[in-house]
Amino acid sequence: MSLLYEGKAKRIFTTEEENVLKVEYKDEVTAGNGAKKDHLPGKGRLNNLITSKIFEYLNDQGLKSHFIERISETEQIVEQVEIIPLEVVVRNIAAGSITKRLGFEKGHKFNEPLVEFFYKNDDLNDPLITDAHIKVLEIADDKDIEALQSAALEINNHLQQLMSKMDLRLVDFKIEFGRTKYGNLILADEISPDTCRIWAQDSDENFDKDVYREDRGSIIDVYQSFLNKLEDIK
Amino acid sequence: MSLLYEGKAKRIFTTEEENVLKVEYKDEVTAGNGAKKDHLPGKGRLNNLITSKIFEYLNDQGLKSHFIERISETEQIVEQVEIIPLEVVVRNIAAGSITKRLGFEKGHKFNEPLVEFFYKNDDLNDPLITDAHIKVLEIADDKDIEALQSAALEINNHLQQLMSKMDLRLVDFKIEFGRTKYGNLILADEISPDTCRIWAQDSDENFDKDVYREDRGSIIDVYQSFLNKLEDIK
Ligand SMILES: Nc1ncnc2c1ncn2[C@@H]1O[C@H](COP(=O)(O)OP(=O)(O)OP(=O)(O)O)[C@@H](O)[C@H]1O
Ligand SMILES: Nc1ncnc2c1ncn2[C@@H]1O[C@H](COP(=O)(O)OP(=O)(O)OP(=O)(O)O)[C@@H](O)[C@H]1O
Ligand SMILES: [Mg+2]
Ligand SMILES: [Mg+2]
Repeated sequence: MSLLYEGKAKRIFTTEEENVLKVEYKDEVTAGNGAKKDHLPGKGRLNNLITSKIFEYLNDQGLKSHFIERISETEQIVEQVEIIPLEVVVRNIAAGSITKRLGFEKGHKFNEPLVEFFYKNDDLNDPLITDAHIKVLEIADDKDIEALQSAALEINNHLQQLMSKMDLRLVDFKIEFGRTKYGNLILADEISPDTCRIWAQDSDENFDKDVYREDRGSIIDVYQSFLNKLEDIK
Repeated sequence: MSLLYEGKAKRIFTTEEENVLKVEYKDEVTAGNGAKKDHLPGKGRLNNLITSKIFEYLNDQGLKSHFIERISETEQIVEQVEIIPLEVVVRNIAAGSITKRLGFEKGHKFNEPLVEFFYKNDDLNDPLITDAHIKVLEIADDKDIEALQSAALEINNHLQQLMSKMDLRLVDFKIEFGRTKYGNLILADEISPDTCRIWAQDSDENFDKDVYREDRGSIIDVYQSFLNKLEDIK
């Protein structure tokens, strides 16, 4: 197995099988494109357990992703894809960057989920882009943009149902898609409290990385309590 | 006549006639949302003469705008509209913010004109927005967005033809639209070297506000030479 890519939160390895990768979740947390970062023992385990559970749940709902199986506390096996360089964000409630960018009050409930695309490019600081930009940058064509948009909304529906079973609210989340060697677009990367904003049903208590971004306690405790709720679902 | 609104570059007055306004062009120039500003005698005259000529040209091409008539060196009469709070930008060649935002090289020629919408909101610093944002902010619906988009492209065609008669290239421009009391969307505000990027045919010599933004000479001289070219068209 050789290291294919080391990111801020995960290491990606090739395996003996072609088009199959091993993802190892690291004990690292970062915020603000790496501006703030810390080593947190136990975090890799939590992200790996949570994201595996969520991909299994989506799979049970008939939604295919890159996830194949979890093989240890900190590792999982996934299908290799060519990542589309877009961060696809779905927002149900205003929080984070959109409150500063467009002046929505934190907690404002959108009438319909809002889908945003950001260009996955660290040098440019992951800028917001429009459909016209996606086409001129040759990232995707109209058909693919439409497919990403509707997959994102479908995933939002499934995740909202999951969170509501846990007495939580899904505020927003970021997902990535990739193209398989067969040319299909599928959900990839991770879905965890690192990539979602999750609030308690009746307060804005966070079960997500905002606890770290805003120095409001231990994300190990918070992510563990999220995992407990996830495992307690009947 | 009473002052309705004083902006950075123009004063807007009511007139005796309902839904008819007088626009007075000021001898002021600003850049970076007012961060840089100067008083430049003669600038109001140049912007008023140029924008009047351009609106007349568009009118001759069958494209209706708010423009009614020029009444003095620095004043014109326009139809009152309710401004849609969008800056509609059309880009033929990459320059300015898009080179920083998305990494296009200055001078990159787009295969097709690129249309962008910015939310006209000084407090938020006129952020780029997507169609989804325009709808969630209740600025315009799908039909209006489509109409703004195609009007912008049509205006781009006319302006490109005009500039090529002057041996100039239209790099990009910003326009504003408004709704008349009859509910029609029409082109409003101004079209001048303040709101366009214009290069010589065979070099990137500027005939626009970049000369001021980048401290590269007198915009009075540059705008006067643009006006001369505009008046010399057969
Ligand atoms: N199935 C997959 N096949 C190939 N690459 C993947 C797959 N799933 C995720 N990736 C990519 O692997 C990397 C995961 O590492 P990590 O999340 O730590 O990166 P990162 O620091 O967030 O940096 P990046 O900006 O690249 O996402 C990401 O670049 C992600 O897009
Ligand atoms: N026909 C019109 N009816 C009503 N308002 C108009 C019309 N044409 C232009 N305007 C508005 O009048 C103002 C013109 O002033 P100016 O261009 O100096 O403003 P500014 O300093 O650029 O500020 P801003 O454009 O952000 O309001 C603008 O707000 C513009 O949108
Ligand atoms: Mg990542
Ligand atoms: Mg203005």
